[in-house]
Amino acid sequence: MSVDKHGISRSPVWKKLKEHAEYIKRPENHLKYLIAKKDRLKNFSLKSVDFFYDFSRQRVDDKAMDLLFELAETAEVQKKYQAMIRGEKINVTEKRAALHTASRNLSDKPVYVDGMDVMPEIEHERQKIKFFAEQVHSGDILGSSGKKFRHIVVIGIGGSYLGTEFVSNALFAFAKKNIEIHFLTNVDPHNFETVKTQIDPETTLWIIISKSFTTVETYANMVHAEEYVKSCGLDPSKHFVTVTSKGSPGDDPDNPLLATFHMFDFIGGRFSVTSAVGGVPLSLYLGYDHFERFLEGAGEMDIHTKYAPIQENIPLVSALIGIWNNNFLGYQAQGIIPYASPLSKLAPHIQQLNMESNGKSVTINNYELDESSGVIVFGEPGTNAQHSFFQLAHQGHPFPIDFIGVISPQYPQGSCRPNGVTNHQELWANMISQATALAVGKDSDEKVRFFQGNRPSSTLLLNDLSPTNIGRLLSYYEAQTVYKAFVWDINPFDQFGVELGKTIANDLRKEIARKNCSNEHSFECIDPITRFYLDTMFKGKL
Amino acid sequence: MSVDKHGISRSPVWKKLKEHAEYIKRPENHLKYLIAKKDRLKNFSLKSVDFFYDFSRQRVDDKAMDLLFELAETAEVQKKYQAMIRGEKINVTEKRAALHTASRNLSDKPVYVDGMDVMPEIEHERQKIKFFAEQVHSGDILGSSGKKFRHIVVIGIGGSYLGTEFVSNALFAFAKKNIEIHFLTNVDPHNFETVKTQIDPETTLWIIISKSFTTVETYANMVHAEEYVKSCGLDPSKHFVTVTSKGSPGDDPDNPLLATFHMFDFIGGRFSVTSAVGGVPLSLYLGYDHFERFLEGAGEMDIHTKYAPIQENIPLVSALIGIWNNNFLGYQAQGIIPYASPLSKLAPHIQQLNMESNGKSVTINNYELDESSGVIVFGEPGTNAQHSFFQLAHQGHPFPIDFIGVISPQYPQGSCRPNGVTNHQELWANMISQATALAVGKDSDEKVRFFQGNRPSSTLLLNDLSPTNIGRLLSYYEAQTVYKAFVWDINPFDQFGVELGKTIANDLRKEIARKNCSNEHSFECIDPITRFYLDTMFKGKL
Repeated sequence: MSVDKHGISRSPVWKKLKEHAEYIKRPENHLKYLIAKKDRLKNFSLKSVDFFYDFSRQRVDDKAMDLLFELAETAEVQKKYQAMIRGEKINVTEKRAALHTASRNLSDKPVYVDGMDVMPEIEHERQKIKFFAEQVHSGDILGSSGKKFRHIVVIGIGGSYLGTEFVSNALFAFAKKNIEIHFLTNVDPHNFETVKTQIDPETTLWIIISKSFTTVETYANMVHAEEYVKSCGLDPSKHFVTVTSKGSPGDDPDNPLLATFHMFDFIGGRFSVTSAVGGVPLSLYLGYDHFERFLEGAGEMDIHTKYAPIQENIPLVSALIGIWNNNFLGYQAQGIIPYASPLSKLAPHIQQLNMESNGKSVTINNYELDESSGVIVFGEPGTNAQHSFFQLAHQGHPFPIDFIGVISPQYPQGSCRPNGVTNHQELWANMISQATALAVGKDSDEKVRFFQGNRPSSTLLLNDLSPTNIGRLLSYYEAQTVYKAFVWDINPFDQFGVELGKTIANDLRKEIARKNCSNEHSFECIDPITRFYLDTMFKGKL
Repeated sequence: MSVDKHGISRSPVWKKLKEHAEYIKRPENHLKYLIAKKDRLKNFSLKSVDFFYDFSRQRVDDKAMDLLFELAETAEVQKKYQAMIRGEKINVTEKRAALHTASRNLSDKPVYVDGMDVMPEIEHERQKIKFFAEQVHSGDILGSSGKKFRHIVVIGIGGSYLGTEFVSNALFAFAKKNIEIHFLTNVDPHNFETVKTQIDPETTLWIIISKSFTTVETYANMVHAEEYVKSCGLDPSKHFVTVTSKGSPGDDPDNPLLATFHMFDFIGGRFSVTSAVGGVPLSLYLGYDHFERFLEGAGEMDIHTKYAPIQENIPLVSALIGIWNNNFLGYQAQGIIPYASPLSKLAPHIQQLNMESNGKSVTINNYELDESSGVIVFGEPGTNAQHSFFQLAHQGHPFPIDFIGVISPQYPQGSCRPNGVTNHQELWANMISQATALAVGKDSDEKVRFFQGNRPSSTLLLNDLSPTNIGRLLSYYEAQTVYKAFVWDINPFDQFGVELGKTIANDLRKEIARKNCSNEHSFECIDPITRFYLDTMFKGKL
């Protein structure tokens, strides 16, 4: 049962899946025929923890699913998942555990890393966050000019803000703390200038989020923010908090701040929204109770994932469908189309989660994959996406789609029915229709009105957009992501692919700094293309 | 020289390009070798109208370029472009001209459609927009309770807002009219509720943008907005303007509004930001003068595109590179990564422009393409993208990237140099490094630190983010999009692919409306999967 060191693609079941994919590609297995089969929805959907996953419009039949389950068994994905949540150091390249699940463990069960229960320190941070947020909300903590905080600015990039941005957008309707949230992520000075126009420095709390506290962009923005706060006659130590590793430069007792919260090396950036990384800004923005409901939802989905058998395990089944689409049917992209505006930042978050975790070329045993893993993830909310890029979805290169529907909106629907239906019903009519149109297609003698169909999609349903359900949705995508990695036998927790660009940028930064010090400095040792760009930058125009 | 009715892919030059692509794929033609050749940048870059296009890090050599130029000639793209700007009805399926270029023609040269000069009516709309915006800014036009307008809400979807969103974000630094802009696009009631929290109804002007005025989402949102305005004790006729076709239901003399502006059937939605569709909201937000500078920039790029020979034509060369990447090297996606936060909405706009225009399966002569056209376009600003999905760009499935650099930011850089460089210099160091890292790669005995390289990118440079340059950038992407279509011999101006979903949604809407009227109504005639969704929606929970 164990996997070839070169990865799963050399296993017998992989070959059987390749063969079966050829069978599924035959005209008689067009989706319009597959979905018409008896009990299709019942047999190709799953429900658990108030989360519904419909894969009836994926290009699978019973045999495909059986083979995919065999693939999951061959890859020993459940064993790997259990090892992950038990705290084993499955992030082998960085010799770390991967315990984002511990960050929403609200039970009293311990979780061990190196023989030590990590729950007390996680719980300690939660209590600190709760207490801090309450003090800010009550006015026990004020800015240096004595005013209550009305703005928070998250300074962080990548995994230090994308999850928080997603959740804070999704739960905007729950933000009743009279605090606005802003994101200062890009080192581009335009980002800083724009944020400045939106805040009032006296009532602004800056949250600097960086595990190592050496992220160049975050450090540069923090320095600018400090200078700005000082220039307003305010005391940065009363306006700054940090979220960082113990003992990092951001956790320096000689440099006291309003507060410092800890993140741990066993939770990676893109999996960190349920840790202090999300906890601090979201508790300030939404209130700690809402953050805790969010953790609860994520924890419930974690428990489903831990205990559900392969065939009923929603994140795992969706991961297998993803691999089927990617490696066997040849789709290279995945659309995420929530029919809910508050989920507008879901796709950018999952884009990072998925592409950074699974865009790899090497197995966990350090062998090159026969084929690089990972797909391009992108998306916009529906119905907007219909009026943007769905032309290509219907009549150009096809790509699989996750539709996401929400049964009850966050606001009452009212009595207004412009076309005999409420706007929420209109939204649903569209969501349902798109999945059908993509799957079934339409014959036409007029070539421009011909729809090939056979374009796969899944549909997820949530009862509502409560903090709990946002937690479930997050955990679902996190588990799906690691399951895909476990099948491919890659490490989803490292990101060495970002290093080369950083190394080159470090060299260039030094060159630029030299030129800043001495205009005599020339870039003659640098390759001519790079030199052109540096010269142009210093010249200030083309 | 003329193209087979089945499309360009059956022409001899296509075959030659296929062969040459195999040659380029050989290890000795790795990008690291190509870019090291003498005068690489000089020979593989173009500059015109203060716009620099560097394709030195694309996987092309002289022969590839020569063949691509031959392809352009074979496909007669220049002839098609000239026909387009002359007002011929090149949108054959809809029997319309495609004259977005006329909307920024600031010369006194006529442009004829059906023998009639369309410039007077375009100019008339411009003057109406200018006058209206001035009256709003001066306070000569006030809301129904006598207050100046401080908010505009664009009600529109797809091409009716994406361009305006892109430009208004890009030119935020120029918005000094004390007016905020909001977008009500999605029929999802969450969108409306969120906008409501951001506006003050007494000082809000609603701009309803829909060519036909029959777009379901726009109509539904307009009805809700009207009801809301009335519920605030205000008179909608003093708070609403429309941008629509002459004689549409939104241009009804019996239903007087503050103003109605016209759009024309010869400008499609996704090409309409330089028409009244962008003109009305952008003139209110930025001032008409800034809008006119934007038109001027677009017009300058149009003139370059009209007169530049194939080898020097920037949008055309970039279109050819795109086709080379897509059809010959096999890349199915295109990243757009501006190293400038204000361009954060460029990718969503180009996503629509490109994917809706070119995601087609049929040639203009109504023959099926051998291979569907179009690619997935997506992107986020750098450096953010580096911390999100660039892992996959470097070590997973590769995709070509457009980097966009801006030489002078919209704000002064200041003296703060956190690491010896300004933040703007940091941004540039990163942009330059990414293109190099992707192209060159890096050997390593450690497999996880091995970078294959050979990943193509282009770099565009703009002197600054002025309205003029935003116009140039827009026109560049528009011309690139139509040139790709002209090579593929498809119609970039229709979008029949969105019709099937609409048709099915119309049927479902009727079913839902029936059930709203009578709870007795059952969905028994509907397929079981659809029925499940309708029943769940009415039940209100899973």
